Amino acid sequence: MQNDLINKLLNNERRAVARSISIVESSNSASTELLKKIFPNIGNAYRIGITGPPGSGKSTITNQITKYYRKQNKKVGIIAVDPTSPFTGGALLGDRVRMSEIGQDEGVFIRSMATRGNIGGLSKRAVDAADVLDAAGFNLIIFETVGVGQSELDIAEAADTTVVVLVPESGDAVQAMKAGLMEIADLFVMNKSDRPGSQQAVTSLQTILMMRDHDEKSWMINIIKTIAVQNKGIDEIANEIERHKEYLTSNNLLLKKREQRTKNRIKNLVEDKIREELWSESGEISLNSSLEKVVLGKLSPYHIAEKIIEEFKLKQG
Amino acid sequence: MQNDLINKLLNNERRAVARSISIVESSNSASTELLKKIFPNIGNAYRIGITGPPGSGKSTITNQITKYYRKQNKKVGIIAVDPTSPFTGGALLGDRVRMSEIGQDEGVFIRSMATRGNIGGLSKRAVDAADVLDAAGFNLIIFETVGVGQSELDIAEAADTTVVVLVPESGDAVQAMKAGLMEIADLFVMNKSDRPGSQQAVTSLQTILMMRDHDEKSWMINIIKTIAVQNKGIDEIANEIERHKEYLTSNNLLLKKREQRTKNRIKNLVEDKIREELWSESGEISLNSSLEKVVLGKLSPYHIAEKIIEEFKLKQG
Repeated sequence: MQNDLINKLLNNERRAVARSISIVESSNSASTELLKKIFPNIGNAYRIGITGPPGSGKSTITNQITKYYRKQNKKVGIIAVDPTSPFTGGALLGDRVRMSEIGQDEGVFIRSMATRGNIGGLSKRAVDAADVLDAAGFNLIIFETVGVGQSELDIAEAADTTVVVLVPESGDAVQAMKAGLMEIADLFVMNKSDRPGSQQAVTSLQTILMMRDHDEKSWMINIIKTIAVQNKGIDEIANEIERHKEYLTSNNLLLKKREQRTKNRIKNLVEDKIREELWSESGEISLNSSLEKVVLGKLSPYHIAEKIIEEFKLKQG
Repeated sequence: MQNDLINKLLNNERRAVARSISIVESSNSASTELLKKIFPNIGNAYRIGITGPPGSGKSTITNQITKYYRKQNKKVGIIAVDPTSPFTGGALLGDRVRMSEIGQDEGVFIRSMATRGNIGGLSKRAVDAADVLDAAGFNLIIFETVGVGQSELDIAEAADTTVVVLVPESGDAVQAMKAGLMEIADLFVMNKSDRPGSQQAVTSLQTILMMRDHDEKSWMINIIKTIAVQNKGIDEIANEIERHKEYLTSNNLLLKKREQRTKNRIKNLVEDKIREELWSESGEISLNSSLEKVVLGKLSPYHIAEKIIEEFKLKQG
């Protein structure tokens, strides 16, 4: 059953790609089965993260750079991760613009993912979907994420190169730094650079970047000025990504990065499985029955936790 | 040894508070011991979360509202959580201003916490520190957090009332919604409301709030306009927090909220402990030795994860 799907997936058949992503998004045993089977076929795609505050123009840059890569005849998979509120569906407008621009291209595959209240699971689903796209033969995979939450950090970790998009109004560099963007950027993009305050924002960012510890072998983070809606600066972003890729490859860092990623992934798989077993029906019942004692002040959460661990261990072995 | 410290802590002795927080921040067995012992003495403080994007004026509002509560002779504990970059220490300036304004007051205790690269652990440390302040007799505990990452969501969950601070420049309501702020707010503050675009930002936020599902019994989220540096609107924030507290109490929701919080806490304690055992020295060695096989493409991460779980279970029981 799945073998037929996988053959079609490896053959880059569009419907098989879509269905495979739906399967890995469901996170059940079929998902694990599928991911196990495609594992030998992944590792060829280069993974790019594009992140930044809301309104900085990430989607426009993603669209433009996709068109750039398409001219080079490279296949591009896009995973747009959006922690959109469940009660409005605010991402729809942007998606519609995107679809009309690049969504009809057979060499482009776009998947939007929302948090659905489970931020932790989101990055796992995004990375699993990237593996599907990788196995399907997409040459480049772009993770587009909003903000700087834990899921963005996780996705930055899953990218080979992370592009952080800012605009002059994003606030000064100190704010960007506070928001945690400095740690994850391999290159910065100052978009809407025709707006007032743009040069000042770039200078202030440069100053902070200069303050970082670095030696001759360190990667120097550049700042690219763009006006994405006019397609200005897009080639420069692509060139800088290429330069970063070469840096990683020539210093054997790409392999190391991917090894670390695999390690984290195994850890997550193990922890997810254990968590699932812990809070199975009986675990949840045991927790609920103990909870009353905590609320009445008779036992602390620490005592209850110890009791649950003991019970869990007794069930094993 | 610890009993003496705890007596002094329960007596609101400043140095004992500081030392106890340092102990719970260290997250070792002494920490658990301390938290177990103070457990019967917690539950009296009301916990307020103040969050919003960088530059929105959270610190100023926290300072002003602290002064407001001090006039009512209430003791205020502040836990300022800042995911500041490790290579600059950007939070220092704000802290210095804060210390000169309210830091000398014996009825105020301020603790800053940084992520130190471990975002997951941060919210746990913040909540544990709040328990220490609670046991020490602080009437109000304010969690001040930057941004909207997972740690902010966790801390919002730890607060009885969550205040989300925006400024006209924060971008429109759709952006706030995208950033996940809508889900956690019990009240909004539009700070710097003398700036252009303020009324428009409030209106747009109101429109979105109206779209939410609600019935007669639902809590209606209000938007308070403030100019915090001029102390304008601070009383209104305090009144709205009080109104929310009364709403929670009269609908029996405060107890439910705290019960849910205890439940999550027990789960976290259990999972942390199991995780610790999983990745003890021998687990880490087993993982590293398997990793090579994954990199060589011989085994998938899924196979390795299954093997590690099996080994872990065999060690139990």
